Amino acid sequence: MAPASNSIVPVSGISREIRLAEQPTGTSGESLFEIVESPVPEPGEGQLLIRNAYFSVDPYMRPRIGDARAYVAPYTLGEVMSGGAVGRVAVSHNGRFSEGDWVLHLRGWREWALSDGTFVWKVDPTVAPVPAFLGVLGIPGFTAYYGLYEIGRPRSGEVVFVSGASGAVGNAAGQMAKILGCRVIGCAGSPEKVEWLRELGFDGVFDYREQPAMEALAELAPDGLDLYFDNVGGEQLEAALGALRNHGRIVACGSMSRYEDHEPVAPRNLFMVVTKRLRMEGFLISDHIDLFPEYLARASRWVADGRLQHRETVIDGIESAPHAFVGALRGESIGKMVVRVGDEG
Amino acid sequence: MAPASNSIVPVSGISREIRLAEQPTGTSGESLFEIVESPVPEPGEGQLLIRNAYFSVDPYMRPRIGDARAYVAPYTLGEVMSGGAVGRVAVSHNGRFSEGDWVLHLRGWREWALSDGTFVWKVDPTVAPVPAFLGVLGIPGFTAYYGLYEIGRPRSGEVVFVSGASGAVGNAAGQMAKILGCRVIGCAGSPEKVEWLRELGFDGVFDYREQPAMEALAELAPDGLDLYFDNVGGEQLEAALGALRNHGRIVACGSMSRYEDHEPVAPRNLFMVVTKRLRMEGFLISDHIDLFPEYLARASRWVADGRLQHRETVIDGIESAPHAFVGALRGESIGKMVVRVGDEG
Repeated sequence: MAPASNSIVPVSGISREIRLAEQPTGTSGESLFEIVESPVPEPGEGQLLIRNAYFSVDPYMRPRIGDARAYVAPYTLGEVMSGGAVGRVAVSHNGRFSEGDWVLHLRGWREWALSDGTFVWKVDPTVAPVPAFLGVLGIPGFTAYYGLYEIGRPRSGEVVFVSGASGAVGNAAGQMAKILGCRVIGCAGSPEKVEWLRELGFDGVFDYREQPAMEALAELAPDGLDLYFDNVGGEQLEAALGALRNHGRIVACGSMSRYEDHEPVAPRNLFMVVTKRLRMEGFLISDHIDLFPEYLARASRWVADGRLQHRETVIDGIESAPHAFVGALRGESIGKMVVRVGDEG
Repeated sequence: MAPASNSIVPVSGISREIRLAEQPTGTSGESLFEIVESPVPEPGEGQLLIRNAYFSVDPYMRPRIGDARAYVAPYTLGEVMSGGAVGRVAVSHNGRFSEGDWVLHLRGWREWALSDGTFVWKVDPTVAPVPAFLGVLGIPGFTAYYGLYEIGRPRSGEVVFVSGASGAVGNAAGQMAKILGCRVIGCAGSPEKVEWLRELGFDGVFDYREQPAMEALAELAPDGLDLYFDNVGGEQLEAALGALRNHGRIVACGSMSRYEDHEPVAPRNLFMVVTKRLRMEGFLISDHIDLFPEYLARASRWVADGRLQHRETVIDGIESAPHAFVGALRGESIGKMVVRVGDEG
């Protein structure tokens, strides 16, 4: 049965999707993936069929690909890469959704997605352009929010440092810390990224490829940090441990510095957790996904009133996804890297 | 004016005390200290004069001696080493204390101590032998209690690993985890120490000089750890990070592995704080000292009913303190290392 909606008719009865084809042995290459054609699936009772418009490629996916030191559920060879995607409901046999609804879901790198409605959320495309629901209004924004508000709990006037600050999570974390009245320092890996952080209102910025983090923090936060939102681990974490004030906190959100199987840089000053009475706490947003709708409502207001800005790097065509993913890992994008696979209809 | 109490008369009007004489440049030697004679001080209004019976030498004192990476307040050259001591009130011009009272205080390595009553607590020598108030019924026991109950918060049935478990803090932490109904694993650095941990009721023990921690934990806690009480840092911390289960906790209490200016071993798997959603939190007991009397009351009951055992290594004579301190740093003591400087009269 072909999808019934007028505006969302498949070009053919074929859905292209991207599967994990091999385990990486070193630096990730595009050959990890294969593009496969399969019939557009037919929704059964309670199910819905979604025509994707965009899906997300994220650095955090890297350690889930064949990493013995497994991160959450690892990806399985031969399966479609899961992850955030936005699209429109083409056929609904589920009372919660109507044909034509825009939805965010987690079924990933494919043109057509079948779902039973679990982890599918309606989104309002009048609030922001659709790709934003993969970034600031999606799981990355929610990750920043949860980490900052629930783990870090900064107070107005505190000094917050965000690494990987031009990434989807990092820029949101920095902007939210500004909303809370903090003084925010961010680092990123190119002059263009650093310039964007300035535009977003970060109080201090530096390019970690140009200046050692320890030196930059001494200049930008001479009285020390209260909170470090860590997206990268390694050298930045060591510098932050050195710069944190007594009773400081570290939100352990990611460790991008080791995602490409580099030998991780281990902080030599971890004993400062004792001497400075620090708290370092990790979290995975998948544990808290039931709180996402609450975040979406709150963040939508911030986006509407201009307090929370967003930026996406859009790559065209499902066949470009492996290239986009490798680019995201290499830090080639600013803001959220997304792949366009359909019309915004 | 000579002290008035009948039973506590100074042999002479001279009080010997131990001062920090030089900054260490490498491994600590006894030459760091000098023994100095000075007149027994005369208490003024509101003050009391205490005749010490024992004082404490502790590994944590090491990083406070001329450590650029300062730990709490560093010791100052030429000053008497502060720290736990027990003795009797010889003269009191302070309404809270009477002559003859046994007290615990923090005025350290000296025969006679003058105090205004701050950080002085009455102790009951019928509960336990006096040296125990420098160990399980003193600040080390309180450190174990605060770290375990307030930072670690284990529940009955959880698996707890304690490093430096034969030390004053470590053995108390392990025993208290047993009181809470946990399964407790401890490591120490000699067959005799490990045997003592067995006697204390630890469920699993190993000698870290004989077996790598990672291997031992895999054997003793095949299903992983819920909580790690860290007294040493370094290799044990790395092994614990590997062995902790999701949502595990690390009580960052000390980092003895680096106290002697060794290049600290940095855990290469710190990213697991993210993937396993760990919480690692440091504390210094000096921040919480107002809660000590509450601890003392509770722990006294545990000691009285035999649930909390204790052991002290007693070294005789104030002139032996530098030697005792170096021995404590080298792990030569079992339980609490104390120096006897007066009668128990």
